Amino acid sequence: MRQAARTAEIVQAAAHLWADRGYHGVGVEELSQTVGLQRGALYHYIGSKEELLHEVVRQAICRLLDRTSDDEELLPAERLRALSRTLMREISEHQAEWTVFFREISWLTGARRDEIFAMREEYEQLWVRVLESGVACGDLRPVDPVLVKGILGMHNYSYLWLRPDGPLSPTEIADIFTNTVLHGIDREAISGG
Amino acid sequence: MRQAARTAEIVQAAAHLWADRGYHGVGVEELSQTVGLQRGALYHYIGSKEELLHEVVRQAICRLLDRTSDDEELLPAERLRALSRTLMREISEHQAEWTVFFREISWLTGARRDEIFAMREEYEQLWVRVLESGVACGDLRPVDPVLVKGILGMHNYSYLWLRPDGPLSPTEIADIFTNTVLHGIDREAISGG
Repeated sequence: MRQAARTAEIVQAAAHLWADRGYHGVGVEELSQTVGLQRGALYHYIGSKEELLHEVVRQAICRLLDRTSDDEELLPAERLRALSRTLMREISEHQAEWTVFFREISWLTGARRDEIFAMREEYEQLWVRVLESGVACGDLRPVDPVLVKGILGMHNYSYLWLRPDGPLSPTEIADIFTNTVLHGIDREAISGG
Repeated sequence: MRQAARTAEIVQAAAHLWADRGYHGVGVEELSQTVGLQRGALYHYIGSKEELLHEVVRQAICRLLDRTSDDEELLPAERLRALSRTLMREISEHQAEWTVFFREISWLTGARRDEIFAMREEYEQLWVRVLESGVACGDLRPVDPVLVKGILGMHNYSYLWLRPDGPLSPTEIADIFTNTVLHGIDREAISGG
């Protein structure tokens, strides 16, 4: 197996093992058994356990940023809907990786941690800018930026309850959330905050 | 120190150590050093590591349920606001315990797991019933129950970003969320879902 394919296989195996039993709950020994490598050979591919964690979450957030093609020519409401759908689809299609992302990124340290947190912030700022453009054009009322954290939590927390065989598709769930949020902050909104 | 006080101290210490470094990241040995007990003496108080995890999350969810005094005579909007404020205050005042709750409850097994998941479901049903009463009286439009999971995610995810010295109080954050949600699903809502 070529090196890149082997590394991809290890990243996938780690994401699933850690999603099931936690980053600290599954060691490199068990991981090497799962992918059929000696411990030493595994380190050749991954460098260190923390480097492997970094690779799992980096791939997740890079893919999300890649998929999120915000088009500033669309109406803010449609941009918000697109962000929401892409996020729910991404979490649904890669639930193991996102479980590791949301639950385990605290264990990253140093430059690896800084890099991932900066990408997460970059992603959050996409949402902030769309809401701001809605305010600027008069479609949405001004809201505190903490609402973006709330809206992201609304979506992100789904890593715990999304089911592939659930009654609603990720797109349908995203639209239920977006419709509520959009109507909640349209310029006719009755109450402050 | 009396047994109950000692146990309470151990539960607090475990919540903070696990919030900082994860349930699987801090063992009983380190915990016993933190509270100044021999490993054997610690087991006398806690039974097992999993039993201690159960106790941390059980106290959190019991306290939340106790604090949540839903009053069916109030308007649904006011009941929703009260639920939201109580939840944000509870997470803010006991952030270490709720970090362990949201991030680590997957590691409970058997009857302990069943008990905690049942209490979490009981809590979620409180929100479902308030929304249903709002629909029944004509104040709110019917929404899919998945929205309750979204609203809870909006609040719960704050365990990651709430700061005691943040610019907004837990009550102010709750009101920003509640105002958005309430207006988002009032009966005048323009869009479906």
